[in-house]
Amino acid sequence: MKIENSAGRIVETEIAGETLKPFAGAKKYSYSSKVTDLKYALKKCDIKDGDTLSFHHQLRNGDYVINQTLAVARDLGIKNIRMAQTAMFNVCEPVIDFIKEGVVNRIEGSINGVVGDYISKNPLIYPVVLRSHGGRWSAVKRGEIHPDIAVIAASAADERGNATGIIGDSAFGPISYSQVDVMYADHVIIVTDNVVEYPLKFQEIQERHVDYVAQVDKIGDPKNIMSGTTKITEDPMKLHIAHDCVDLMDAAGLIKDGMIFQSGAGGISLAAMKYLGERLEEKDVVASTATGGLTKLICDIYQAGRVKNVYYSQVFDDYSVKFIQNDLGLPADIGHYADPTSKGRTIDGLDTVVLGATEVDINFNVNVNTHSDGRMLHGIGGHQDTAAGSSLCIIACPVFRKTNPIVREKVTTITTPGDVVDAIVTNEGIAINPKRQDLIEKVKGKLNIVPIEDLKNMAYEETGGPQELEFEDKLVGMTRWFDGTVLDLIWKVKE
Amino acid sequence: MKIENSAGRIVETEIAGETLKPFAGAKKYSYSSKVTDLKYALKKCDIKDGDTLSFHHQLRNGDYVINQTLAVARDLGIKNIRMAQTAMFNVCEPVIDFIKEGVVNRIEGSINGVVGDYISKNPLIYPVVLRSHGGRWSAVKRGEIHPDIAVIAASAADERGNATGIIGDSAFGPISYSQVDVMYADHVIIVTDNVVEYPLKFQEIQERHVDYVAQVDKIGDPKNIMSGTTKITEDPMKLHIAHDCVDLMDAAGLIKDGMIFQSGAGGISLAAMKYLGERLEEKDVVASTATGGLTKLICDIYQAGRVKNVYYSQVFDDYSVKFIQNDLGLPADIGHYADPTSKGRTIDGLDTVVLGATEVDINFNVNVNTHSDGRMLHGIGGHQDTAAGSSLCIIACPVFRKTNPIVREKVTTITTPGDVVDAIVTNEGIAINPKRQDLIEKVKGKLNIVPIEDLKNMAYEETGGPQELEFEDKLVGMTRWFDGTVLDLIWKVKE
Repeated sequence: MKIENSAGRIVETEIAGETLKPFAGAKKYSYSSKVTDLKYALKKCDIKDGDTLSFHHQLRNGDYVINQTLAVARDLGIKNIRMAQTAMFNVCEPVIDFIKEGVVNRIEGSINGVVGDYISKNPLIYPVVLRSHGGRWSAVKRGEIHPDIAVIAASAADERGNATGIIGDSAFGPISYSQVDVMYADHVIIVTDNVVEYPLKFQEIQERHVDYVAQVDKIGDPKNIMSGTTKITEDPMKLHIAHDCVDLMDAAGLIKDGMIFQSGAGGISLAAMKYLGERLEEKDVVASTATGGLTKLICDIYQAGRVKNVYYSQVFDDYSVKFIQNDLGLPADIGHYADPTSKGRTIDGLDTVVLGATEVDINFNVNVNTHSDGRMLHGIGGHQDTAAGSSLCIIACPVFRKTNPIVREKVTTITTPGDVVDAIVTNEGIAINPKRQDLIEKVKGKLNIVPIEDLKNMAYEETGGPQELEFEDKLVGMTRWFDGTVLDLIWKVKE
Repeated sequence: MKIENSAGRIVETEIAGETLKPFAGAKKYSYSSKVTDLKYALKKCDIKDGDTLSFHHQLRNGDYVINQTLAVARDLGIKNIRMAQTAMFNVCEPVIDFIKEGVVNRIEGSINGVVGDYISKNPLIYPVVLRSHGGRWSAVKRGEIHPDIAVIAASAADERGNATGIIGDSAFGPISYSQVDVMYADHVIIVTDNVVEYPLKFQEIQERHVDYVAQVDKIGDPKNIMSGTTKITEDPMKLHIAHDCVDLMDAAGLIKDGMIFQSGAGGISLAAMKYLGERLEEKDVVASTATGGLTKLICDIYQAGRVKNVYYSQVFDDYSVKFIQNDLGLPADIGHYADPTSKGRTIDGLDTVVLGATEVDINFNVNVNTHSDGRMLHGIGGHQDTAAGSSLCIIACPVFRKTNPIVREKVTTITTPGDVVDAIVTNEGIAINPKRQDLIEKVKGKLNIVPIEDLKNMAYEETGGPQELEFEDKLVGMTRWFDGTVLDLIWKVKE
């Protein structure tokens, strides 16, 4: 059909079976400042009972944004918020009150510390869902998590909504977790204490995705932003374990030009990076790439010319924040880093990663989420992702802590299944997954290799064996594998 | 239901009405090189008759990738390809043969030059669809264009598929057009003549989206990559028009600290940038931001300290390529720049833009696509986008060219409707859209403002009026407004 459009032209409404809409007029586009306060922003984003609110955790234990947002939700009379934070720390203790008051009733995301302790004793109506970094990213893509409102802390933003975590008093490194949220959320609010001149120089989040910029007094406490599990150990026993991790990499033939490596954020893992830096120097090796969280240890290796590239998805200390302000390197958002549904990730080529554990078992399963008393006190982080992405996944831990066997028959909760764990390095020797006969052949005779059962037995002899837990028929949480499947359930312990 | 998963844990298959899948095993992730040749890549991407293949045009008149890809498709016996290039230039003359041979039968994308001329005389089975930069981006988002295979030229790529246009012998500036293609295409092939060590330092396209890296001898001819409509005019009459454009901005009160501006790629528009730089200097004004295509002219203004920021979506000359290699500034992909479905774009704050025209009419409609003889010889580029995004859209053109009236009763084809065109600056005076009474009030008495009808009359007197065209009932192409509606149809001229 021919029709006259609003420009006065005769156009067709169908060509070759395809329906076409006639031009109906053009208007000028403009913009207005998106800066407002958090209350107005949440109201304009149509916050309502039962909404899913997503947050990132890059302000770590210095985060003020989660608490402030929930307090405003409470003031607005909102109930039954589903939190979809990437993680939360002790600073989020007020979440306990928000739960008690009915403001929050479901949580999908990692929890560290007191809130986890509370929920372990007072389960929510639906178990807390624990996912890895890559698992959460893909869960948003798959629609398992649908943020009604993504609330994103930024240490600087301009009035149009371009936002960063790289500069400003509350700088925490590039925003890395929220890119998938802004693509899938119905509404997006940037929360910042630092509105700067347009256009912002760093733009991990761009205005195209942003509805409002909520200005607050402080997004966090800078001295607690860089903290937590990011300090190197000083315990000689743990340092010894760290050193053995590097010996294992070396014996496995991985310490060579072009190697790609990562460390987790735990004290032993970080110490291993220090020793790895020294080993690279001794052997005159230049690694290709470090991935994961950026620390001064990694910056040092880079500046010594012992690793050519640094891919980083988080920044863990002040030194590193200043470092990237001068030399951005290769920031990798979590999708680039670990999305298991993508066609290629920075961690897929990892030669080795050193990770921690609260428990490991004789099937090489690893627990990082619960303590042996059953309490859910930690998130997953990139544990699963890097274990599966690495050729040599090393778990570093003592065989026991105080009266608690760390190596045991069965972990309390499976975070990362033994299928993807290659070696467990302890203060009493190194256990290698029997699936890795190739690795056993390689390192045999060079290192103190012991059967995992022997380590378990030592632990049981020293401690009298594990505390037996009795559970109630109430779910506290669940761990999911990064493909979305249910790996394990966390039950409430009988008091 | 309780079930034992493959990690030996008893898990629920349903909680609170939500179905859950039990863990079914974990495997190691790895990677292998994606580098191959173009033929293998196309085969592995399951190329078949009727597929839509998308390309960007950033190699401009030096592009070898479109021709090479279609030649391989022909060798594979493929028919009826729908091309979805962002633009093509004279270098793509072989496309005429591919059309004749049935390899290509539909084109959705801008065409410049000989292929447009051919199609104007030999229409395809479906009209060529011409969209603006932002219109094309949103068309891919909306599904109007669905690339089966996105074929993306890169001047450097690593074996995992990270890709850039910033470095290498065939550098053409950051890849800016293809981000939306890689998100929506079924398959993605990077085509490069420069496979570099992993990880590539610039990554406009990341491995997460890439299936194959097709290595070819040359992606293009560097000396023709930077060419075409990107040379400043030397014609005194046109320089005069350019100067008047800047006078108009000035009279409108736009040349002040914080201004945001852009030029199109035509000779007069570029000259206007030169004069604008001088005016900024004279008035001691510091602009906020330049957007659009980067040229030495803009780099000069930036280096003189007369514009604080440079947002760029294309790079038009060698000088600018080297410039950004040292100071990346603010590259903006086309989504950031002009996606009309986004929540904010770099062009939404444009104070002014200077654009060209092949024709304008008394309703301020602008034609850049067809010549007055009816031939479809040019693409839309960012014309529509910046016209609508700017407070003052200036069209710069002479009132006539040789025997052809440029200002006329009715443009041959509407590219950009008069609704969003504010002023037409010619060698015989400036016509201001009567809708802009505010602007007329502001500049009255300062400039030679003339009614558009007078300009038309002058043009008709000098030329004897426009050539009358007779059309056949065959469609050559259509222009769409960036919201997807049909703005105008391009009919075959009777021979």
